[in-house]
Amino acid sequence: MATEQFVIFDVNENRYQNDFSVSQESGIELSGSAAWSVSKHTLRGGLSAGVDVVEINNGALALSLLPTRGMGIWRGEYRGISLGWDSPVQRPVNPSFVNLHERSGLGWLNGFQEFLCRCGLASNGPPGTDVVLDNNGNEIQTDLTLHGKIANTPAWRTEVEISDVDSGLLSVTGYIDESMMFGPSLRLKSTLQTAAGSSSFTIIDEVTNLGGQTTELQLLYHTNIGQPLLDEGTRFVAPIRELAPRDSRAQEGIDSFPAYSAPVTGFVEQVYFMTLLEDATGRSVVLLKNSTADKGLSLEFQPQQLPYFSLWKNTQSMRDGYVTGLEPATNFPNLKTFERERGRVVTLEPSESAAFEITITVLDSIKSVADVENRIAKIQSQVAPTVHSQPIARFTPVS
Amino acid sequence: MATEQFVIFDVNENRYQNDFSVSQESGIELSGSAAWSVSKHTLRGGLSAGVDVVEINNGALALSLLPTRGMGIWRGEYRGISLGWDSPVQRPVNPSFVNLHERSGLGWLNGFQEFLCRCGLASNGPPGTDVVLDNNGNEIQTDLTLHGKIANTPAWRTEVEISDVDSGLLSVTGYIDESMMFGPSLRLKSTLQTAAGSSSFTIIDEVTNLGGQTTELQLLYHTNIGQPLLDEGTRFVAPIRELAPRDSRAQEGIDSFPAYSAPVTGFVEQVYFMTLLEDATGRSVVLLKNSTADKGLSLEFQPQQLPYFSLWKNTQSMRDGYVTGLEPATNFPNLKTFERERGRVVTLEPSESAAFEITITVLDSIKSVADVENRIAKIQSQVAPTVHSQPIARFTPVS
Amino acid sequence: MATEQFVIFDVNENRYQNDFSVSQESGIELSGSAAWSVSKHTLRGGLSAGVDVVEINNGALALSLLPTRGMGIWRGEYRGISLGWDSPVQRPVNPSFVNLHERSGLGWLNGFQEFLCRCGLASNGPPGTDVVLDNNGNEIQTDLTLHGKIANTPAWRTEVEISDVDSGLLSVTGYIDESMMFGPSLRLKSTLQTAAGSSSFTIIDEVTNLGGQTTELQLLYHTNIGQPLLDEGTRFVAPIRELAPRDSRAQEGIDSFPAYSAPVTGFVEQVYFMTLLEDATGRSVVLLKNSTADKGLSLEFQPQQLPYFSLWKNTQSMRDGYVTGLEPATNFPNLKTFERERGRVVTLEPSESAAFEITITVLDSIKSVADVENRIAKIQSQVAPTVHSQPIARFTPVS
Repeated sequence: MATEQFVIFDVNENRYQNDFSVSQESGIELSGSAAWSVSKHTLRGGLSAGVDVVEINNGALALSLLPTRGMGIWRGEYRGISLGWDSPVQRPVNPSFVNLHERSGLGWLNGFQEFLCRCGLASNGPPGTDVVLDNNGNEIQTDLTLHGKIANTPAWRTEVEISDVDSGLLSVTGYIDESMMFGPSLRLKSTLQTAAGSSSFTIIDEVTNLGGQTTELQLLYHTNIGQPLLDEGTRFVAPIRELAPRDSRAQEGIDSFPAYSAPVTGFVEQVYFMTLLEDATGRSVVLLKNSTADKGLSLEFQPQQLPYFSLWKNTQSMRDGYVTGLEPATNFPNLKTFERERGRVVTLEPSESAAFEITITVLDSIKSVADVENRIAKIQSQVAPTVHSQPIARFTPVS
Repeated sequence: MATEQFVIFDVNENRYQNDFSVSQESGIELSGSAAWSVSKHTLRGGLSAGVDVVEINNGALALSLLPTRGMGIWRGEYRGISLGWDSPVQRPVNPSFVNLHERSGLGWLNGFQEFLCRCGLASNGPPGTDVVLDNNGNEIQTDLTLHGKIANTPAWRTEVEISDVDSGLLSVTGYIDESMMFGPSLRLKSTLQTAAGSSSFTIIDEVTNLGGQTTELQLLYHTNIGQPLLDEGTRFVAPIRELAPRDSRAQEGIDSFPAYSAPVTGFVEQVYFMTLLEDATGRSVVLLKNSTADKGLSLEFQPQQLPYFSLWKNTQSMRDGYVTGLEPATNFPNLKTFERERGRVVTLEPSESAAFEITITVLDSIKSVADVENRIAKIQSQVAPTVHSQPIARFTPVS
Repeated sequence: MATEQFVIFDVNENRYQNDFSVSQESGIELSGSAAWSVSKHTLRGGLSAGVDVVEINNGALALSLLPTRGMGIWRGEYRGISLGWDSPVQRPVNPSFVNLHERSGLGWLNGFQEFLCRCGLASNGPPGTDVVLDNNGNEIQTDLTLHGKIANTPAWRTEVEISDVDSGLLSVTGYIDESMMFGPSLRLKSTLQTAAGSSSFTIIDEVTNLGGQTTELQLLYHTNIGQPLLDEGTRFVAPIRELAPRDSRAQEGIDSFPAYSAPVTGFVEQVYFMTLLEDATGRSVVLLKNSTADKGLSLEFQPQQLPYFSLWKNTQSMRDGYVTGLEPATNFPNLKTFERERGRVVTLEPSESAAFEITITVLDSIKSVADVENRIAKIQSQVAPTVHSQPIARFTPVS
């Protein structure tokens, strides 16, 4: 058994490979597939100028990682099934062109187009005012911007690991520091791992407080799915402990919250906040399945790590972004001040780390979809779901 | 007859040529000139780091295009006559260094130095507050910044076309998306075309609503001219339907609005808003001519496409930017909210496009200047100009 | 005697060397050392993408210059003594990623990690509101951001000069324009010069008003020192004319202001404002010496050029940035409006320049430390220092 490591770039070591590539032709054989590869190139031109792209292909599942955009996953494909969606933002955007404060704190939406991006680390949720300490230790009001900074912070090191353990494991790891003087200092070490030939991948994240004092952490995994997995008749399935609509708009759709319509011009997003049940090993799983129940996507994670889950239904016209978000998180994406009051903001002591793991699997058969659905049913069998028809004050600001 | 097309870069196709060049030596002969060429290089260092420059030279007229800055025209030269001006901003600025919100929304002025740049697409005019919809469909107040985003948005594709039709045609086309999730989504396809050996070039722009709902468009062509074409005794000539000073400051100069002084330290800009007459083919033309009437520059366009024209007189000291702007537009550059009230904001349905065409000609003889002046006189002969000595409420906010 | 000049890059001349290097092997012999060199490379990846680094090594003293960050000095080393500090910002940040308006105007702190950076040129000091003129000559309120723009403005030209005069002189010069249309237009020509084999270097700065009207200038040299020169028992020594704590927090430490503690978690900065005495040649010198008085660093400058000095004591935990700042300046770093009222803002007429010179010396023996201390004592002997135990209204806003 052997493991080989490759550094694509590292600012500390002043190393940077313009073009990187490793595959079976490099002399590493993985039993799961002969068609695996990991490569890197850099986009040039437009708002994408300077965006590094790492392509990881396990022989069946291919994913495009964006170190320049906080190790987000641009898009993917598994046996002809596209992963991702068609955002009005058509190409990855270099964070150097993104002003998060634009449009009253909604500037993040100028770069939002990934299959998966993170919202955090110091804050996520909508724009609004928070109180922080300045360099003199005085409280000052400051504007939080939509979903924080991590999706627009580039990794300073990216490395690749190929191991021939079992069927063969491919890993890409990025290191991102969201830090400033007199402010939060958090490091995200993010690994994407996939087995050769498999239909799934796992995100293994570790967030560490590099600072000398207690700090706060918010992290949400904004997993975004459009066609073909999302379409008329697609359904969301999950082992729900408690669910409530975020607001009156979501309340309108509460009776059919698990179901999706075809694209509707002018559709206004509906968001459902929920907590999930877990199995005996502490794991939970949610499913998006298409109308014929022969294709789908599942997310598996531990509610202990990611206790609050948001379902974002945004079935707008294709041109405006027909998409749904499956979003496990440390909190609900309300304004940070509200989440802090509700005790849903993680705190980290100096040197303390928080670990997060999510496994995403592409399902391409009736059987594989049914298997996940049965697993969810089994978890749900512990207790009936509590579904509130109206927003509840524990979950959201209710007026 | 043959046409050859070259792609300089295209993010979608992951293509990018560091150095591009085509000329007669490439094997294409144009009858209008043997000295034509189109080439591309990239500026490095300073605020210009990463700015792509496309040099188009028809053998007599040379222009430097900036795909990185919304296909603006940095500067030009025709037989020894410089086109452009000396801005305090001495070099093209990569938009990644421009914060449009700086200086209370005047950040655009940190990059303003082109011979021609566009103001738009979702808005132009001064900074101020507008109401937009957020992701929840709720109205929110947001800060519009001076002259919008398009001049600081890089093209994601740039292509060159060389055709031997007639005397030979050189074209450079850029594609720029000004789009965001939950916001306007507009595409500008911009072509600059010039005939081999000629003294003129044509801008052929098409703006398309990529979004799924009706959207607004504002577009102004900020054409900026300094020495030698602008100097003491230079005059502006146009077939005016109706003209009014923008404000009390412009009112001070209304009696001599067509005339320019030498540079004056501390001069405060004077702006005149006008509508123009057109000829039987729907075309209008305006002229800037020097004091000896042997050099000048004309802009020809269709008032149906660009119905509102601004004359910006900014005869400050050379060090502060001695310049005048000839600015055909879809609107007057007032705050968007005012223009909306006056019915001067274009709306585009989904997939709908608006087309704009402007021909700019450099005049380098008494005869060529006189010819344009005669043409203007002929258009003006339809009806005497209405020149208001004070600002009027239809054109500007009058207190 | 010969001098050779090398241009590393110049946007005006469209020149840029990806990799530059000159040393004795290039055929230039300097008597002071054979181990001298000047080289340039560019950081890639992370927030450092595109940051040019010029390494200047006189054979004994090595410094890393950052043309991309306003010719700041990232870090240095002299015979095993590190110059600089460990900021929570671990790597140089390309200004294209810095939003100075972030965190209520504290965005500058996202890039702050240098041994020496400048604060200015149009303003320095804390965030706050000032009144400026817009393009119409009208007064508008605008937000000044912490410490201004110069540390986040890249040089557009960088050149190297090697001269065999005396023991040999190495110089690196950068040109930076902080300019905009309808705003201040200031050029910094900054030279760092060091003699081969020496323990010191000199910064020779010239700031010129490129604009056509009188303009304001604020400039502060933020010299930041951490371990090993800063440690428990380190002391600050200076020939003080008058000193006062900046605020009540600094007042708490007034009795021991020259002494430093070990890192203290949660320590809130203490800043002391002072004016200094000078010797007969108009020069003053300040010293930081370690507890055993065998290592130190001195700054020598002319109070006529830099009349106001700030001592920034920030003995936080190592993780939060254990550092002290020795900061000679044209003003105290209060809000610009306050400094203007107190007559401490420099004004420059069109074409007028202001010159600044600072010599920094690394001391690595008991004798060299004692020599500087004796020199300071001799300057101080002219008059006893006036040390206020409380903030004074001439220096700071006192409520």
